Amino acid sequence: MTATLLDGRSAAEEILGAIVGEVSRLDRPPHLAILRVGENEASRCYVERKCATAKRIGIRTTSRVLTASANLEEIIGQIDRWNGDSGIHGILVQMPLPDSAMHGAVFDAIDPKKDVDGFNPHNFGLLAQGRGGGFVPCTPNGIVHLLRRYGIATSGRHVVVIGRSTIVGRPLSLLLQSRGMDATVTQCHSKSENLREIAKSGHILISAAGSPGLVGGDWIGDGAVVVDVGQNFIADPSAPSGKRLVGDVDFAAALDRCSYVTPVPGGVGPLTVAMLMKNVLMARIANGC
Amino acid sequence: MTATLLDGRSAAEEILGAIVGEVSRLDRPPHLAILRVGENEASRCYVERKCATAKRIGIRTTSRVLTASANLEEIIGQIDRWNGDSGIHGILVQMPLPDSAMHGAVFDAIDPKKDVDGFNPHNFGLLAQGRGGGFVPCTPNGIVHLLRRYGIATSGRHVVVIGRSTIVGRPLSLLLQSRGMDATVTQCHSKSENLREIAKSGHILISAAGSPGLVGGDWIGDGAVVVDVGQNFIADPSAPSGKRLVGDVDFAAALDRCSYVTPVPGGVGPLTVAMLMKNVLMARIANGC
Repeated sequence: MTATLLDGRSAAEEILGAIVGEVSRLDRPPHLAILRVGENEASRCYVERKCATAKRIGIRTTSRVLTASANLEEIIGQIDRWNGDSGIHGILVQMPLPDSAMHGAVFDAIDPKKDVDGFNPHNFGLLAQGRGGGFVPCTPNGIVHLLRRYGIATSGRHVVVIGRSTIVGRPLSLLLQSRGMDATVTQCHSKSENLREIAKSGHILISAAGSPGLVGGDWIGDGAVVVDVGQNFIADPSAPSGKRLVGDVDFAAALDRCSYVTPVPGGVGPLTVAMLMKNVLMARIANGC
Repeated sequence: MTATLLDGRSAAEEILGAIVGEVSRLDRPPHLAILRVGENEASRCYVERKCATAKRIGIRTTSRVLTASANLEEIIGQIDRWNGDSGIHGILVQMPLPDSAMHGAVFDAIDPKKDVDGFNPHNFGLLAQGRGGGFVPCTPNGIVHLLRRYGIATSGRHVVVIGRSTIVGRPLSLLLQSRGMDATVTQCHSKSENLREIAKSGHILISAAGSPGLVGGDWIGDGAVVVDVGQNFIADPSAPSGKRLVGDVDFAAALDRCSYVTPVPGGVGPLTVAMLMKNVLMARIANGC
C-alpha cells in the first residue's frame, strides 16, 4: 500500500482564499495583535509566518515583543490594553513563554471574545462541554478540517491521540469526541503503558508528542490514517541551516502501511495558520468595529 | 474470583465526618442554595437527599422550586440574585431542566466562585486544561476519591469510560487523564463501534451510560476494576414502590470476573453528595462571610 498524502498546504490555501473574499466585503479589516516574549527562535519564525500570511490576505497585525525577563504584570498589562482597545479584534500570545508557570494566568487574562487561540478557560470549557460558540484552538481545528476534506469518517471509529498538551492533544481529543465527529478517542501520553499496542489499534493515529521518530512502522495498523503533528528540528549537517524539520512519525514506514498520512512539513502546520486567520475573521465579525 | 466491593457509603461518611469538624470551626456555616425546576421525581429525591445530608453536617441550605413552565429569564434571575448575595456560598441547579436547551445558559449564569457543581465553562475549562483551582464536578470527583481510597493505581493504566455526558463522562475522563492520575483514557459513547471489545480491554471500566444491563460479564476483562455510575429505575412488582434502582452493570457477573466493583446503590451515589458538601465548604472558605 502507498498512502495518499493529506495535503495541508492546498487545504490551507483554500481556506485563506475564502477569507480574502470575506475580508474584502468588510469596511475595516480584521486586526490581530500578537505578543511574543523572549527570543525563542521557533516562536519568532511562527510569528513571522502568521504576520506574513495575515498581510497576504488583508488581515492587519500589530506585534509586540517583550524581553525574556518580562514579569507577569507587564505581560498582562499589554493584554489588558489590547482587551480594552476596540480596534483590536483578536489577541494571540505566542507559546511557550520563557516561564511556563505563567501560561495559566496569561490564558485567563485574554478576553474570551478576542481569544483567537482558544486557550482561555471559558472557551476551552465550551469545547470540553461540546457546546460550540467559543473559539477552538487552531491546530486541532485544522486537523479536523483536513480529515473532513479528505472524506475520512470519524463516527464510531477509534482515534488514538498521543500527547496531552493544552495546545494540541487535549483540545483535539475533545473535538474528535464531540457530537458530529463522534469518534471513540483514546488519549495517550508519556505515562501510558503499552503505547505501541494502543497506537496500533487506532483507525486514526494522531501523534502530537513532539518526539522525533516516536511512531515507527510497527505502531501503525494496516490501512490506518496517520496525522503527524510533531514539529521537531533535528541536526542535519547537509542542510544549509544545519538542521531539518521532522515530525514524530517514521514517514517512509508510514507510507507503506497506512491509507492516508500527513507529510512534515506541509501537513498540519499550514492549517494551523489558516485556522488562526479564520478565528480572527470570526472575532472581527462578532465584535464589530 | 469474588470481587471486593468499593464501599461508597463508608467512604462518604469519612468525608462528611471531616467536613463536620471543619464547619464547627467556622463563625458562620456554609450556605448552599439549590434551584429545582419542574416536577421530576428523581430530581426531587436527589435534592431532598442533598438537603438532608447538608443539615446533618451543619451546612445551611435554601431551596427554591420553579414550575416546569419557568422561562430562562426567571431561572437566570434567581441565579443572579444568589450570585449577588454574599450570604450564599454555593449555588446548585438540579439537572436535568425540563428544557435541556437551557442547560448551557444556566451553566454560564452561575458565578464560577459559587459553582459547586463545576459546570460553569470557566471551571470546566480549568479541569480540561488540567490546571486545578476550580470546582470539579461531584460524581467524577467522588469516583476518583473511591479509587484512591482503595489504593487502585491509575498511572499509565487503561481506563475505559462509557458515556460522554457533561455531568459525568466527560469531566471524569478529563480528571483521570490529568497529571497525578495519569491514566490512558478511552472515552466511549453511544456511537462507539466494538464497544464490548474496547470495554473488555480496560484495566478500569467505568459505565456512566444510564442503560440498565448494558455491561454484561463478557464486557469485563479478568481482574478489572468496575465502577457503575448508572442510576436506573426499573419496574419491580415485588418492591413496595413498584420499582428498583439498578446500575448499568450485570452485578452478579461482575462479582465473578473483576477485582473490585461498586454496588448500586451504595457505590458512587453517596460520594456524589459528599463531594458536593466538600465543594460547598471550599466555596465558604474561599469566599468568606
